Amino acid sequence: MARSPETFRAAQDIDVRIRHEVTAIDPQARRVHVVDLASGREFWEPYDELLLATGARPIIPKLDGHDAQGVLAVHTLESGIRVRKFVEMTKPRHAVVVGGGYIGLEMAEAFLLLGLNVRLIEKAPQVMATLDPDMAALVADALQAKGVALHLEESLDGFETKDGALSAVVTDRGTYAADIALLGLGVRPNTEIAAEAGIPLGVRGALHVDRRMATAVDGVWGAGDCAESYHLITGKPFYVALGTVANRHGRVAGTNIAGGQALMGGVLGTAVTKICSVEVGRTGLQERELQDLGWDHVSETIASRTKAGYFPGSGPIHVKLLAEKSTGKILGGQIVGETGSAKRIDVVAAAITGGLTAEAMSELDLGYAPPFSPLWDPVIIAARVLSKKTGV
Amino acid sequence: MARSPETFRAAQDIDVRIRHEVTAIDPQARRVHVVDLASGREFWEPYDELLLATGARPIIPKLDGHDAQGVLAVHTLESGIRVRKFVEMTKPRHAVVVGGGYIGLEMAEAFLLLGLNVRLIEKAPQVMATLDPDMAALVADALQAKGVALHLEESLDGFETKDGALSAVVTDRGTYAADIALLGLGVRPNTEIAAEAGIPLGVRGALHVDRRMATAVDGVWGAGDCAESYHLITGKPFYVALGTVANRHGRVAGTNIAGGQALMGGVLGTAVTKICSVEVGRTGLQERELQDLGWDHVSETIASRTKAGYFPGSGPIHVKLLAEKSTGKILGGQIVGETGSAKRIDVVAAAITGGLTAEAMSELDLGYAPPFSPLWDPVIIAARVLSKKTGV
Repeated sequence: MARSPETFRAAQDIDVRIRHEVTAIDPQARRVHVVDLASGREFWEPYDELLLATGARPIIPKLDGHDAQGVLAVHTLESGIRVRKFVEMTKPRHAVVVGGGYIGLEMAEAFLLLGLNVRLIEKAPQVMATLDPDMAALVADALQAKGVALHLEESLDGFETKDGALSAVVTDRGTYAADIALLGLGVRPNTEIAAEAGIPLGVRGALHVDRRMATAVDGVWGAGDCAESYHLITGKPFYVALGTVANRHGRVAGTNIAGGQALMGGVLGTAVTKICSVEVGRTGLQERELQDLGWDHVSETIASRTKAGYFPGSGPIHVKLLAEKSTGKILGGQIVGETGSAKRIDVVAAAITGGLTAEAMSELDLGYAPPFSPLWDPVIIAARVLSKKTGV
Repeated sequence: MARSPETFRAAQDIDVRIRHEVTAIDPQARRVHVVDLASGREFWEPYDELLLATGARPIIPKLDGHDAQGVLAVHTLESGIRVRKFVEMTKPRHAVVVGGGYIGLEMAEAFLLLGLNVRLIEKAPQVMATLDPDMAALVADALQAKGVALHLEESLDGFETKDGALSAVVTDRGTYAADIALLGLGVRPNTEIAAEAGIPLGVRGALHVDRRMATAVDGVWGAGDCAESYHLITGKPFYVALGTVANRHGRVAGTNIAGGQALMGGVLGTAVTKICSVEVGRTGLQERELQDLGWDHVSETIASRTKAGYFPGSGPIHVKLLAEKSTGKILGGQIVGETGSAKRIDVVAAAITGGLTAEAMSELDLGYAPPFSPLWDPVIIAARVLSKKTGV
């Protein structure tokens, strides 16, 4: 039931209908209203179980000029190819990226690698809302060091066009010449049809699902970027549009729909990205979330090296860890550093999942050899320093 | 009290005596017998607390020609520099490495990078005794692919010399022309003086210590490659000569000697190494150990990629995981693969420490982005497949 079904492939015994769109759901009668986009034919299709895997779509505000040639967003593989083709065909010189999240940063990197001048505009006082401000500042430094003109606390107002093509990006602070504008303003779950059918929505408009990935309506399931998860630490509903989580959703929903039994585990919002040689990783709760929850916590940020200091290719790495003050339990981690930094966040995710305290984490027996790490892995150094601040 | 004290540096308030050797310990009188190597003067030095941090030394069998020019081992920084100087001065063409452990493999890599022909001789049927045979076979393949002539199940008999310099390495199967021979036959704890003083030894002749790093003799402590650890999984005494473990020993012993309280945590023998682009990681118990313990276990090895398959630089990776059959708890892991493989073992070490089952490990929320990983990190794929074999 995906809205971009072209990428689907028919498996044996599965009736795949590409270029068919579901326009309404009738859960009482267990049927969906379908439009055959090629012929225009409309019909009702019955179902025993209905999986809503409609994903999310990028937020594109309907500002002046938003439909001009050169104003682009990335969502599907096809939209990524479209950006590349646009660059190849029109040879733009000035790229403006709007939004400093994962998509914005990765597209900024792509434009840098293609040799464009890159300007990045972000409404918030920091890039990467999933990082604490201090760690986001390191990413901002890296962006600027790589040559990105960074504009924080600046809101998109619209686009100037010339003959239907983008000529400038307009914000509340200035007008910037642009041949291409890439919008990375986040995504919104595709749940309008579900909502119209009375299927309850939850966090950020995603389908509210239980741990079996069942919605509150009998026979209707949700999976992927259109559906909620629950947070491993807080136990509360949580929305995160990430491929790993979407894939887990699908596995659990599919198992249950097929008559098996599976429960979705908690998620930590673990994510990794990079801007050229600077890597970013994050997992678990960040300070803002902990403040909102009213949890008494401590945090520590350390600077270390990705490899033994004397080893070729060793670079700086910053690791921030957060722990519950009373128990010492690790609640979150953020990493910014040179090549070899980001995936170290996986150890933090595993430590959180295992319920490790900062002290227990500081005793982890991690691998050391000069090409891979300083004697003490940076995540261990952070855990050790942090453990002195906890109440245990 | 190190036997190679030249590398020590005097800190404030520490009386550092370089070129002094302790030749005997009298724990009843709390004093050590010291020889001033420069003057020959001998004297007894009293102590309140004695830390034995005498390390280990490479095993060098006294075979014919073992003292010839060109027969070398690596131990200290100085000995590494000596190997490099020997190569620079004598321009050897044929290197023979004896021993297929960490040192042997890393020196084989160093000789390859220096442009030498490299032959590696190993007595056992596999390289890297800390890996299971199937994973060691992948390392052997990698060594051969990098151009190393590999001889397994072949024992060193001695060295042929010419004018006092090495000319060939002799084994029970052949004689091989060699300009330089590097012995990587493991290490032996430096505990002779301790043993003579009646301080009890444990596994592999290392100082037997409790979790405070105290020996069984009042006022005598041990730390580093001369001292035992205990294994996190089995709880039994365990000997491993690794920098991370030695450093933890020192921290614990020092804290206790200075009047604080610290306990040494368990170790997993986590280690990482590489041979050119092929990386190796291992942690926890291996099959041989599990068989010796009589633990009913299951294992699974999967092949995946280090990054998304379509991403530049993506390479093969093999991950083996072992778990207790009845509980599903992860007991060990081994990784062999291209760049980006080895440090993934840290997630396995964290999972073991957190007491995770294979199923729980398969649910870990690890970071994904195409430059860093396939959608499912290879360690998760291994955990998922393994979880189907466990009794939970």
